Amino acid sequence: MALLPAALERLLHELTRLPGIGRRGAERIALHLLEAPPEQAGQLAEALAALRREVRPCGLCGNWAEGERCAICADPRRATGQLCVVERAVDIWAFEAAEAYQGRYHVLGGTLSPLAGVTADDLRITELEDRLGPEGISEVILATNASVDGDATAHYLSQRLSERGLRTTRIAQGVPLGGHLDYADPGTLRLALQGRRPLG
Amino acid sequence: MALLPAALERLLHELTRLPGIGRRGAERIALHLLEAPPEQAGQLAEALAALRREVRPCGLCGNWAEGERCAICADPRRATGQLCVVERAVDIWAFEAAEAYQGRYHVLGGTLSPLAGVTADDLRITELEDRLGPEGISEVILATNASVDGDATAHYLSQRLSERGLRTTRIAQGVPLGGHLDYADPGTLRLALQGRRPLG
Repeated sequence: MALLPAALERLLHELTRLPGIGRRGAERIALHLLEAPPEQAGQLAEALAALRREVRPCGLCGNWAEGERCAICADPRRATGQLCVVERAVDIWAFEAAEAYQGRYHVLGGTLSPLAGVTADDLRITELEDRLGPEGISEVILATNASVDGDATAHYLSQRLSERGLRTTRIAQGVPLGGHLDYADPGTLRLALQGRRPLG
Repeated sequence: MALLPAALERLLHELTRLPGIGRRGAERIALHLLEAPPEQAGQLAEALAALRREVRPCGLCGNWAEGERCAICADPRRATGQLCVVERAVDIWAFEAAEAYQGRYHVLGGTLSPLAGVTADDLRITELEDRLGPEGISEVILATNASVDGDATAHYLSQRLSERGLRTTRIAQGVPLGGHLDYADPGTLRLALQGRRPLG
């Protein structure tokens, strides 16, 4: 309705610009904030302002950081000679939540995508190469997404890095943990078969 | 993971306090704001600050308003002698979206709930009675929710207001528009039968 206070309409407009929030969700959030203790909206506003003021990409790996280095690059125990290349910082969070990797990361900032006009110069590949010598990297793990663009980018990087005599590996693709074969799509089944390994 | 920048963790904490936003949704929103043009987070922060600064309950009906009166109470064309009593301001928005009512509203601020310790003094009932004379109200439409507490509150108000010789009505309960009978719950079917009306 056109009868809402302008400040309320403006907040609803800003909220619906966020991913995963529609008009109804925005209304619920706005009403919650109107009925909650007054400081809650203020704390959220302050946290938003601090986000862009204090969080910036890590100068080395591109992960989100406070200060010049992210917590992983600042930790000398993570200098294992391995580098895990991912598309976006959120992929680092997924790996860290899995607690399955001890080394450092490198955020590409996307994938090669000729149709969208994304070339190798648009990704953080030079920054990746600049790290190899100083950090004594012996293996680059290519952990781009299992999509067409992610695969193509992994192959491109593998070729470019192997010309420098570097070992590159690609994370495995196959049936996910707990996955039922009759629910798996044909492409996944094909990859799971191709990637089969000797048992015992 | 414990490795996220503190400012990012703080924003995730504030976002997950909002209704309908979990940890994953909060991460998506935070990343979106980090990757979006810098002004977007600032505009959202400013809209949040303005919300509590500029939006307050209307002095008459309790709807959210900018200034002393909400847009509905400020509009003399809505002085129809009818008053529609609702639990919360969001119910006004629902009625306005339906464009089915021309009069004014009154927000109770909840329902009677003896178990939760909510008595008639906690609701905006005196404020309601104070409006009856000055606004020349001839009918009070009780549009509390179709819940146990909503029904009980409607009956209490009906009794209290009819002692003053006022006509009170309750919105109809029954099968919703487009509702299939075989999906309707027994209580709704019972109400739909009890509320049947002559046709033609």
